[in-house]
This record gives sequence, C-alpha cells and structure tokens, in this order.
Amino acid sequence: MSSPLRNSPQSILTMLRWLLLLIPLALVVGSLNALFLYLLEWASDTRALKPYLLYFLPLAGVLVVFIYRRFGKNAEAGNNLIIDEIHQPGAGIPARMAPLVLLSTVVTHLFGGSAGREGTAVQIGGACSAAYGRFFKLSGHDYQILLSAGVAAGFAALFSTPLAATVFALEVLAVGRIRFDSVIPALFAAILADLVCTAWGTPHTQYKVDFLEHVMLFHHLVHVDLLLLGKVLLASIAFGIAGFLFGETTFIFKDLFKHTLKNPYLIAVVGGLIVIAIVSLIGHQDYVGLGVNAYREGGVSIISAFSEGGAEWYSWILKLLLTAITLAAGFKGGEVTPLFFIGATLGNFLAWVMGAPVDLFAALGFIAVFAAATNTPLACTIMGVELFGSEHLLYFAVACFVAYFFSGHTGIYSSQRIAVPKS
Amino acid sequence: MSSPLRNSPQSILTMLRWLLLLIPLALVVGSLNALFLYLLEWASDTRALKPYLLYFLPLAGVLVVFIYRRFGKNAEAGNNLIIDEIHQPGAGIPARMAPLVLLSTVVTHLFGGSAGREGTAVQIGGACSAAYGRFFKLSGHDYQILLSAGVAAGFAALFSTPLAATVFALEVLAVGRIRFDSVIPALFAAILADLVCTAWGTPHTQYKVDFLEHVMLFHHLVHVDLLLLGKVLLASIAFGIAGFLFGETTFIFKDLFKHTLKNPYLIAVVGGLIVIAIVSLIGHQDYVGLGVNAYREGGVSIISAFSEGGAEWYSWILKLLLTAITLAAGFKGGEVTPLFFIGATLGNFLAWVMGAPVDLFAALGFIAVFAAATNTPLACTIMGVELFGSEHLLYFAVACFVAYFFSGHTGIYSSQRIAVPKS
Repeated sequence: MSSPLRNSPQSILTMLRWLLLLIPLALVVGSLNALFLYLLEWASDTRALKPYLLYFLPLAGVLVVFIYRRFGKNAEAGNNLIIDEIHQPGAGIPARMAPLVLLSTVVTHLFGGSAGREGTAVQIGGACSAAYGRFFKLSGHDYQILLSAGVAAGFAALFSTPLAATVFALEVLAVGRIRFDSVIPALFAAILADLVCTAWGTPHTQYKVDFLEHVMLFHHLVHVDLLLLGKVLLASIAFGIAGFLFGETTFIFKDLFKHTLKNPYLIAVVGGLIVIAIVSLIGHQDYVGLGVNAYREGGVSIISAFSEGGAEWYSWILKLLLTAITLAAGFKGGEVTPLFFIGATLGNFLAWVMGAPVDLFAALGFIAVFAAATNTPLACTIMGVELFGSEHLLYFAVACFVAYFFSGHTGIYSSQRIAVPKS
Repeated sequence: MSSPLRNSPQSILTMLRWLLLLIPLALVVGSLNALFLYLLEWASDTRALKPYLLYFLPLAGVLVVFIYRRFGKNAEAGNNLIIDEIHQPGAGIPARMAPLVLLSTVVTHLFGGSAGREGTAVQIGGACSAAYGRFFKLSGHDYQILLSAGVAAGFAALFSTPLAATVFALEVLAVGRIRFDSVIPALFAAILADLVCTAWGTPHTQYKVDFLEHVMLFHHLVHVDLLLLGKVLLASIAFGIAGFLFGETTFIFKDLFKHTLKNPYLIAVVGGLIVIAIVSLIGHQDYVGLGVNAYREGGVSIISAFSEGGAEWYSWILKLLLTAITLAAGFKGGEVTPLFFIGATLGNFLAWVMGAPVDLFAALGFIAVFAAATNTPLACTIMGVELFGSEHLLYFAVACFVAYFFSGHTGIYSSQRIAVPKS
C-alpha cells in the first residue's frame, strides 16, 4: 500500500479499463431493460383491455414452468444464483437467463400474475455481465466486480435510480454491512445503463410528495417535527413486520405447494386457479399485475396510494397474498414492485389512522417495506431521495432503518449472508 | 434469531430504552455545541476587528499546550482516542476532554490559527457520551453504541447534517466498509442534537449551488451530462490527491517539529511564528481562522469559492500549508472546515481550467476532499445532499468515491482501521 502519488497512474489506468469495459455492457443491459419495460407496458395495457386473459393464467404458468425445465439449466435459481456467484464464483450464470426471465415475466404480467420486475432486471444485468466476463476471460475478483456492476446496471435502468441501484448491488450481498470494493465500477455501470435506457425514451413513473413542513422550535426552523417523527417510528415498525410477513408468506406457500402438489406443472395450474378465485371474489383486477397504475376509475394502485382515500385498509394484505401465491406457483418477475404496492397502501392506511400526511407515509412505506424484505436500508433511503427528493431525507432514513431492524434476518433472498446480526 | 413477530415487543423496548437514554445526552451535546458555535463566531468576529491578535498566536499556543499537559490526561489524543475506544473500550475518555477542547479551539481561532471545528464537536460528543455511559454503568457493546451516538450527535449539531453525521460516525471507524449495528441510536442522537442546537438559534451556513442542468440525449431528458461527468472524474482524482496531501503534510510537520524542536512549548511558539510569517507574506488573513466567510472586501473564503473568481489558483495550497502547521504545532479544532476550504477553492480553480460550473465544482471539492482525507465517501455524499440538495446527487457520489479511491489508505485519523483495502 504505497503512496497514492506513485499509484495514481496505475489507478487511473485501472479506472479507465473498467470504464471502457463497462460501456458496451451498459449499452446492452440498458437497451434490454428498455425493451423489457416496453413489453411490460404492452402486457399491462393489453390485459387491462382484455381482462379475460386472467383466465389463461394457469396455462401461462404451465408455459413458464415448461420453458424453465426445458431450457433453464440453473437459471431457475434467479437472483439467488447471482448473489451466490458474487460471493463465490463457480456455478456459472447461463446467458439464457436473460431472455428466459424477460419472456416469462412478460407472460406472467400479460395473464395477470401479481409480480414485480426487479428480479428480471437484475437477472438481465447478471446474465449479461456473466457472459461478458466469460468473453473477456475475467476471473476471481474482477469477475465478481463485473457481476455487481451488472446487477447495478439492471436495477438502475429499471427504476432510473442509479445511486440506489449501486448501493443495492453492494448491500444486498450481506445483512448488516456494506463493503466498498466494487462501488466505482458499479456506479459507472448504473449511471450509463440508466442513461441508455432513458435515451431510448423509456418512461419512468414520476412520484410526488407534496407535503412540506416548516417546523419551528423556540422560533427557529428545525429539520423534523418530533410528533411526526414518533408517528414515523410507529409506522416503520409496521413496515418492517409487513416486509417480514411477505417473505414468510411466500416461503409458506412454496413449502405447502411443494409438499402437497409436488409436480411443478400442477403447482403452476393450482396457483393460477387460486389467483383467479381470489380476483373473482374481489371483483376487480387492482391487485394483480404490476399495480403501478390503476386501470379503472377509482382503482387502487401505487400511484393512488399517494392520495387520501387511494387505498383500502386491506389493500396491502390482498397484494401480499396474491404476490406470494403467484411467485410460489413458479411465475417470474420479482418482488420489489409488489413490495412498493404493499408499503404505499399500508402507509396510506396508517397515515389515515394516525392523522399523518398521506403522501409522505405512502412514500415511506414504499421504500421501507422494500428495505425490510431485502435487508437494504441504505439503498432504499437513497432511492427515497432519487424518487421523492431530499426534503424528507431524515424520515426516509428513520423509516428504512427501523423497518430493517424489525424484519428479522431471513429476507426474500436466501443467498444473502448475515454479516452483522441486527441484535 | 427467532421470528420478528415474537421479538418485536422486546425490540420495541430496546428502542424505547435507547430513545430515553439519548434524549438527555442530545440535550447536553446539542447545547454545548450551540455554545461552542456561538463562542467560535465571537472569536472569528473579534479577530476580524482586531487583526493584531494574530501576533499573540505563539503565546496562545503555549497556553493550549500548558492546558493539555497540566489537565489533559489522555485527552490530547482527541478523535483517535474516541475511535480507539469504540473499537476496543479500555483507555477511557475523560469528561474533561469536552471543556478542554472547546476552550482551546476558541483560543486557536481567536488568535488566528488555521483550523477546523469538527474535532471539537466530535470530542464534545464523545466525552459527554463516555461520561454518561459511566454514569449509567453501560459496558461492552452498549457503551460502544453510546460512543458512536455521541460522535454522531456532536457532528450533527455542528454542521446541521444529521444523516451525514450518523453515517460518518459509523463509516469513520474503518476504511472500505460500514456496519449497521449502531445506526438507529446514532440516528436518533444526531437528529435530536441537531434539533437542540438549532432550537438555540445557532445559525448554520447556507450554501447554494444554482447550476441546473437539463441534458437531452436523443430527445430524452437524462440524469447526467457525459462530458461534465468526465470533467468531474478528472477533478475528483485531484480532490483525492489533495486530501492525501493534507494528511501527509500535517504528518510531515508533526514529525519535523518533534525531531528538531522536541519541546512542545517550543513547537507551539515556532509553529505560531511560522503562521505569522506566512500571513505577513500573504498580506491578509483570508487563510487563517475557519475561512467560512471572508472578513474583507473580495477576500477568499469557502462562500466566495462558490462564485467565479472567488479563489486564487494557489488558495488551496496556502490553506493546506497553514492548517498543517497550525495543527502540527499543537493547536486544536479539527481538519474538516479547512478541508472544505481546500476542496471548494481547488474546485473553483479546476472549474475555471476545465470550463465547468464553478458552484457545482466548489461543492464537489467541498465534500470530496473531506471524503478523501477521512475515508468517509458515503457520509460525504449524503452531506452533499443535506447541504446542496439532491439535484446533483450522482456527481456527489462520483466525486466522493473517486476521490476516496485516489487518497491512499492513511487518512487523517491514525486509529482508523483498514477493513477492505482500496485496491
């Protein structure tokens, strides 16, 4: 570890090498994610116009299971495979993971499964970077860095939150700790992939928190309102427990399906039928698909949860249940957008109960339930800033870290390691 | 690690216990920092009115050395003692550290030493929390958490950046890694201490970055301008090297003084005389004291560096030199505000060289040189958001992490451990 003055030329070369290496990767990952977001929008709009597509969900499930069993190799393991491979390269991430997950996620959404999309983006990023790494014969630490950069690129392009994506890629590896080794390549990849995806004209949802506070204490403007802070604390405990329940429920359904139905095709059919049954009981399709926008007048969605009366008290429970069943049945997509939905609608309800600003609490739930379920409180705090601005930064941090501490150690990624226990 | 559902009541009690424990601590640390900032303002204003006070600097040095030798016990070790004690409790932090460092920092600034103030705030926080921990007979992990919370509280009250303070308190312990164990108590303490300090009416400097960018790529609005990003990269390498040079220069002067002059009183006198000599050569006092505001028409200061022509090309070198000599001579205060000065003026100069926005580059230098010298890139990125808003978040992150990677492993805190080497 000699002087940086002597090292600088070498360090500059290393940085330049990564930069050049990452430009083509970011182009591919950003463009594939633009295509993915475009297809996803098409699938959501199509299902909104033809609600009867939902009745083909069991069939779609059979298709997804078939594709993965026939062509999938070890791609089925999804995000966990990528996390494992960053920890300890070995199993190999097949390039086919990218088209498979892209296609099956679009199928899931077209036929009304309740799922997310970040798993898809992360797997596109991971699979592309793994193939790219093999092409350039990278190994060891360089290969691990490249995979992290791929994850960051995928996540960044999807949500257009490059810094949150970078921190997510580093933070998701282990509970309770973040290491900085691959931060610069990951940040480059995230910034570039977001740039590429946005330059394709991919629209990203704009969220708005209008609540502004001017809190005076002894005639001086201060950063936080203590009463509101207390409400945020209480709500955040609920967000943490909701994040935990989501992971648990998915796990319980997976286990139940596996032990009773056994056959994966049967699991997909039965899972699809249960989703159809629940949606028929509810009477509308607000709680399937992505849920970012409502496709009927007065429907519940992530966006509607930012306004008073924009969610029912039980919205988050239905979304949690439908997503857990969809994913346990073998459909693809991911968990994050449903976690946003669960958090935003729960926040909406808690704001009503506690007499707190609805838009702020929807935003807090949005990021905090995600933080709790994935054990990434820092990435989610930063995501709060990237999506909602820095005005409420302190509430974002309190919500994410408190929810994280109340969500237990399991989380939705079984490959995540526990570096520093929560208590 | 049982289910959070079973654990929650226990976790809520733990959180409540910390909250109650930290309220009195935050009251004391916040109030002491309000007093400190008030005295510091008085000292700076007084010296501006009576520039001849500078000629008493050698005498003031003798006083500071005397106070520490007569009453200091192990308080002389300052921030390093606190970092060591968080890593491995044992040596004990004497309560007297708080009044000693407060008094001697005010003396340093009254008589025109070039120094900062964060060391003082951190030591006030550390000393108060150590005494408080002894009072409540806390030990082991609880005592370490309390110390981290004290550091966060001191830093937060001083700069009114509670989240940056929280992250700083966790990040400063080791290079290349951050652990989340004490984040919630630290965040509480930081928010409350900032609240208390602000409620006393303590004014905090407002910085402003007016530069706004609307970058279009293929007719679509994107997050960053690639050309500007390239300039930020180059400037950040310079910021990293400046941060390294600051630590090195201070170390070299300390070493030189110790080996040639030996006697600490003699060191203080000679150090003071060198400062007087340099200031006389320069012809004005822009580069001593805090340097936040200029006390003459057209003077160079941190604030002036945010405007075109607000700094000379050599401003950062003079500030670096004068601060290194002042601190090596035994004066007190800290390094951070001088690091802000060095960064902002260097940023001002580099913006002029590269044809980049001056206010943005001053802001980048402000946080990035600090990030480089203390190895706390994440805290400094967040500080950027807390001081300058989230508009330029990506540039903040790039600047802080690149500067961090180019600053070597030593940093200004010798007690900092290396958890994950930079390369």
